[in-house]
Amino acid sequence: MVGTLAQEAERLDGADPLGSLRDRFVLPQGQIYLESTCLGPLPSTVSSAVSEAVDTQWRLRLIQGWWQDGWWEAPGRVGDELGRLLGAGPGQVVIGDSTTVQLFNALVAAARLRTGRPVILTTTRHFSTARYITDSAARLLHLEVRRVAPGAIEERLRIDGDQIAVLLHEPVDFRTGELHDVGALTRAAHAAGAVAVWDLCHAAGVVPVDLDAHQVDLAVGCTYKYLCGGPGSPAFIYVNSSHQQVFDQPLPGWNGHAQPFAMDDTYQGAAGIARARIGTPSVLALTALEAALRAYAGVHIQQVRQRSLSLTGFFMACADEFLVDTGAEVETPRAAHRRAGHVAVRHLDAERVVQVLGTQGVAADRRPPDLMRFGLHPLFTTHREVYDAVRILREVLA
Amino acid sequence: MVGTLAQEAERLDGADPLGSLRDRFVLPQGQIYLESTCLGPLPSTVSSAVSEAVDTQWRLRLIQGWWQDGWWEAPGRVGDELGRLLGAGPGQVVIGDSTTVQLFNALVAAARLRTGRPVILTTTRHFSTARYITDSAARLLHLEVRRVAPGAIEERLRIDGDQIAVLLHEPVDFRTGELHDVGALTRAAHAAGAVAVWDLCHAAGVVPVDLDAHQVDLAVGCTYKYLCGGPGSPAFIYVNSSHQQVFDQPLPGWNGHAQPFAMDDTYQGAAGIARARIGTPSVLALTALEAALRAYAGVHIQQVRQRSLSLTGFFMACADEFLVDTGAEVETPRAAHRRAGHVAVRHLDAERVVQVLGTQGVAADRRPPDLMRFGLHPLFTTHREVYDAVRILREVLA
Repeated sequence: MVGTLAQEAERLDGADPLGSLRDRFVLPQGQIYLESTCLGPLPSTVSSAVSEAVDTQWRLRLIQGWWQDGWWEAPGRVGDELGRLLGAGPGQVVIGDSTTVQLFNALVAAARLRTGRPVILTTTRHFSTARYITDSAARLLHLEVRRVAPGAIEERLRIDGDQIAVLLHEPVDFRTGELHDVGALTRAAHAAGAVAVWDLCHAAGVVPVDLDAHQVDLAVGCTYKYLCGGPGSPAFIYVNSSHQQVFDQPLPGWNGHAQPFAMDDTYQGAAGIARARIGTPSVLALTALEAALRAYAGVHIQQVRQRSLSLTGFFMACADEFLVDTGAEVETPRAAHRRAGHVAVRHLDAERVVQVLGTQGVAADRRPPDLMRFGLHPLFTTHREVYDAVRILREVLA
Repeated sequence: MVGTLAQEAERLDGADPLGSLRDRFVLPQGQIYLESTCLGPLPSTVSSAVSEAVDTQWRLRLIQGWWQDGWWEAPGRVGDELGRLLGAGPGQVVIGDSTTVQLFNALVAAARLRTGRPVILTTTRHFSTARYITDSAARLLHLEVRRVAPGAIEERLRIDGDQIAVLLHEPVDFRTGELHDVGALTRAAHAAGAVAVWDLCHAAGVVPVDLDAHQVDLAVGCTYKYLCGGPGSPAFIYVNSSHQQVFDQPLPGWNGHAQPFAMDDTYQGAAGIARARIGTPSVLALTALEAALRAYAGVHIQQVRQRSLSLTGFFMACADEFLVDTGAEVETPRAAHRRAGHVAVRHLDAERVVQVLGTQGVAADRRPPDLMRFGLHPLFTTHREVYDAVRILREVLA
């Protein structure tokens, strides 16, 4: 049976049309890197692009780089490139700032689309920074935050619908990797008259979210996980074109002004997605991200999803084989439509197990109190690596 | 007389103790670069530092870079380094986000220190993005923004004192280069019971602001002008240690949590300046800034100020000689204690003049409608360059 799984890994890797994309990354030697849920590895295009930005653009062209090297347009240009992976047509995504900041902007702007409704509805499972920002936005706007389990969101929208200004939801549970239905939940929010805001941090680059098709209102996310934009790479915001003219953000910076260089006394938001720009963005960070996204060139997010499902499904098959009687259990839902890009494994001693795994060449991460997370990146993780990782996990647990 | 000024330039450059620091920058060839008010040039230490961050830290150590390469501590570590130039003792400055975002955080936090007072007092001369953010913060907090000419601020603090929650002021008028008295205005704000917030964008790295000595409450600023952190390099916030325990910001991100990796459900701000951290910062941008600040190694801000005054004073002497009857007039105040690091020259045709100056090897910038700005950087601009720039300006105007 073990032999069969190893052979199956070889077969799946051999048959995989995305197999050659592994060359687009400079992966660490002697390590199975399964931490793309934290920080994606270095794409091979980034180093030269960043050097060019420093040693040629900034050094030689200085302030002219804003025009001659396309720095000024980069937030929207890179946003369009990223938008392709989110199912967002051009002119709806802009890059900049951190997820924390973008989420604040999105939540306040969303609530302003539904003045008079007193509630932000969100889940009990959301990532910490999103919780803090939601509480802060609600405090400033004198709104109430109502938190329920993800499974109770639709019912809550039906019952409290007329009170809910904003539904804030995440497609992927950052702990368990459970996938939620962006389309169904957005429709439920709209049926209640609420605005749907999505936090795509653990979805972008690995799960299709089809923002336009689902008529999502606003979305934000980071770019340093599956998208491999680098440590602390800038976040993004999606503003559906139907809202852009009335998008009323709490952080109206000069970069988003209709005439930024007129230095007007009063704010007049630019047309289109440029209005969602805030202050001056880091050109080095944008350059790294733009180069990193080339790893996705020619790839459709549905292909990414197919390989992701193959990897996570194979992880589970290996877990069924190797993790019996080890005290470790797969926490991620089994059904394909309910799992995202990483697999979470529960074990009482998760912290120490992850440490030992690291010494055995398997880089995984954990979330307190007892979850290990294995981020399987569809562009470079192989089924053979999944096989080896689960096998080594078994050895560590034994 | 012209001969005399040229000789004076040589004498001043020869006698200048900071003269050798020019080697710390990779300056554009064949150009007199006077745009440090927009974007400082490339310090010679930046390129290798950024390459190291990409090609060694990120590539090899991946997520471990947060610990092994000091990424996690960088916002405070670089903040301390910068604080030295601001007269801020350790543990009061943190780097991150844009000035726009930091100003929002500072203004809201400042107003929360004076609940019940209905007014934010600021000047009519503030930079556009600061105006928009002030209006936005006031709208969220239901405060009134009162704007008066800089010369009327102290009187307004005396008359309306008990209404004013926050004084927001800038040491340097971004258009004219006029310098305002941080100490006197902070004392006046405190006498009225208000909190003093300073926007240091055009002051940091060129003018001493002595934040601790003047008991400034909060300050923010950018790092891409005189500090040469690179295009869109991150901003900073100073929170006087006396306020850190009660600093209550509207953007409470997970990086500023007392236990960031516990992923707590509720926000509990960290002790000290770490509380002012927001989301995950760009490591590449922080790396570039940290390297750039080495250009100031071993230099005291008072030495910088002395050379700055020498350069701006010499610019004015050259203007008196060269710009007579050209229609161009120096707008920057003459008195040493009233001028900052750049010299503004008014001319009806400023836009076209600056364009032609560019073709003649003098990079200056302009602010609508009719100001040219000449940013003289004390670490590399020479008196000879000032002489040549004003001489060429005369030729262009003739």
